[in-house]
Amino acid sequence: MPEKAPWVTYRPELKVLDCTVRDGGLVNAHRLSDEFVLAVYATCIAAGIDYMEVGYKNSVRLFPPAEFGPWRHCDEGLLNRVFEHHDAEKTGLKLAVMADAGKSDWREVLVPCHESVLDVIRVAFYAHQVSEAVEMIEYAADLGYETSANLMAVSSISEVEIDTVLDAIRPTRASTVVIVDSFGHLYRERIEALYRTYSAAMAGTGKQIGIHAHNNLQLGFANTIDAIILGANRADATMGGFGRGAGNCPMELLLGFLRNPKFKLRPVVELLQNHIEPLRETTHWGPSLPYNITGQLNRHPNAAIKFLEGADNKNYLRFFDELVRDC
Amino acid sequence: MPEKAPWVTYRPELKVLDCTVRDGGLVNAHRLSDEFVLAVYATCIAAGIDYMEVGYKNSVRLFPPAEFGPWRHCDEGLLNRVFEHHDAEKTGLKLAVMADAGKSDWREVLVPCHESVLDVIRVAFYAHQVSEAVEMIEYAADLGYETSANLMAVSSISEVEIDTVLDAIRPTRASTVVIVDSFGHLYRERIEALYRTYSAAMAGTGKQIGIHAHNNLQLGFANTIDAIILGANRADATMGGFGRGAGNCPMELLLGFLRNPKFKLRPVVELLQNHIEPLRETTHWGPSLPYNITGQLNRHPNAAIKFLEGADNKNYLRFFDELVRDC
Repeated sequence: MPEKAPWVTYRPELKVLDCTVRDGGLVNAHRLSDEFVLAVYATCIAAGIDYMEVGYKNSVRLFPPAEFGPWRHCDEGLLNRVFEHHDAEKTGLKLAVMADAGKSDWREVLVPCHESVLDVIRVAFYAHQVSEAVEMIEYAADLGYETSANLMAVSSISEVEIDTVLDAIRPTRASTVVIVDSFGHLYRERIEALYRTYSAAMAGTGKQIGIHAHNNLQLGFANTIDAIILGANRADATMGGFGRGAGNCPMELLLGFLRNPKFKLRPVVELLQNHIEPLRETTHWGPSLPYNITGQLNRHPNAAIKFLEGADNKNYLRFFDELVRDC
Repeated sequence: MPEKAPWVTYRPELKVLDCTVRDGGLVNAHRLSDEFVLAVYATCIAAGIDYMEVGYKNSVRLFPPAEFGPWRHCDEGLLNRVFEHHDAEKTGLKLAVMADAGKSDWREVLVPCHESVLDVIRVAFYAHQVSEAVEMIEYAADLGYETSANLMAVSSISEVEIDTVLDAIRPTRASTVVIVDSFGHLYRERIEALYRTYSAAMAGTGKQIGIHAHNNLQLGFANTIDAIILGANRADATMGGFGRGAGNCPMELLLGFLRNPKFKLRPVVELLQNHIEPLRETTHWGPSLPYNITGQLNRHPNAAIKFLEGADNKNYLRFFDELVRDC
């Protein structure tokens, strides 16, 4: 990896992944209409985005269809129907799903890659689940998929745990290892340290480093830029920053920053106008004080989501005092 | 200046300036109640903030009192009445005002520092006004004030112009030179380059470098951190990021980041709950797509403000197309 990446112009090897449907879908238990998903899909193609993550491939037993929308399971029937005419080569867009260790019946549901519209399986896991994650990655690779290893909540574990996980991931066929700031807690200093750790651990394997940031401290975009400057070649974002709680790195800011002329901002503006901004009438996301506080305290945003859904949701002082007391 | 500042712990010499009333006041032509201003004042003291900028000292001829609130002029009578019992030494808080070159009758309105509750005059100017700015700084310094030089809209001028301005400021008694990203256009790379330019130009003078960031690209806080990491010892912020258009670096994020135990977050949470969040019912500020676009295109946010006040204010595509065409 170069000490300073040539980011001011552009790197053709830098690829952008849209996770609006997968991560944003957590806002409403993945009850997203086909129309919405297809609008995001058309936008990804028009904007020159490289990957679109269309949902989770998680267990119907753990996430009953009565409570969770279809993009939580992404069964092959759904994908074949909605993306019937998908052509990764012609569109330049690869479709991906995320499968969580401990939450996915991956042995039962994954079909060979050439039978699926999917090209990529992203394996998400907590540190203690790394053994299953390795099995999942290898299983998906055997089926012909491109894979990635997404170690979640990295701000909540120690350096030694991180090293252990990276040692286990290194020999797998995962093509990407993603720095995942689930709690939106990391300042630039930590992004840099993690990038150097991940990059050193994967040196010589050809694996790419990715970045997946949340916006609790209004650093989702800034941390994504920082990782890119250091050399990360895979960046996650969502349209309008759509996502649970404080949301994600906003695609419109990321594409505005990148200098590769294949990326087009206008289709994203159109999607925001027609499909994302209207959601704000019924759904709230984006940084606000309760998420600032969970981010600063390195806590899961659930505490803030619960507070905001409660009756006393203007009483920021109570929320602050309770969280400080609990730490 | 050290190559890498010891920012992870804290630097006692790092000082925070609240400009909620001065810069945030632009939202409603500085028609802010005494009660609001005093609530911010009490919060600054309780939170350990070093400076509070209470408004502009600008001309009543150019800003007639029928159209502009009292914090646009900050006449000494107002300040003496509202801050009657102010004691900078006891509270640890210095009061500041901003005077704009070309918009301030500074020779008529400035009184000797020992006759005023003010300790600091911040002189704001565009590059072409630097000669008047130098006169203003020296005049205020003669009256006993601490002064700062705030070159505005630095993203819209060339390196040669910046050098010329810094050469003119260097021999003055300004104790601080502030990097001002008026359009919220700067990425980290430019913040770094500007910091190094300002810092080299002021080397040996004892002058401090300050940072004043806007949030068009959701980088207000990130750029403030970046400048602090590089060595900037003066940082501007507003409560809740309150400010015209996309707003400013939010004080609650800045204080959460700083490790000096004198800074307290809780009083800011209380102010946000009781005085800032309620303003959102009638006033909009903070990053959104139109401000993202003006920020990316290095345009004054007025274009976005005008668009958002218009009847067709959901038609982001029209706004985007018009701005791209005009560039």
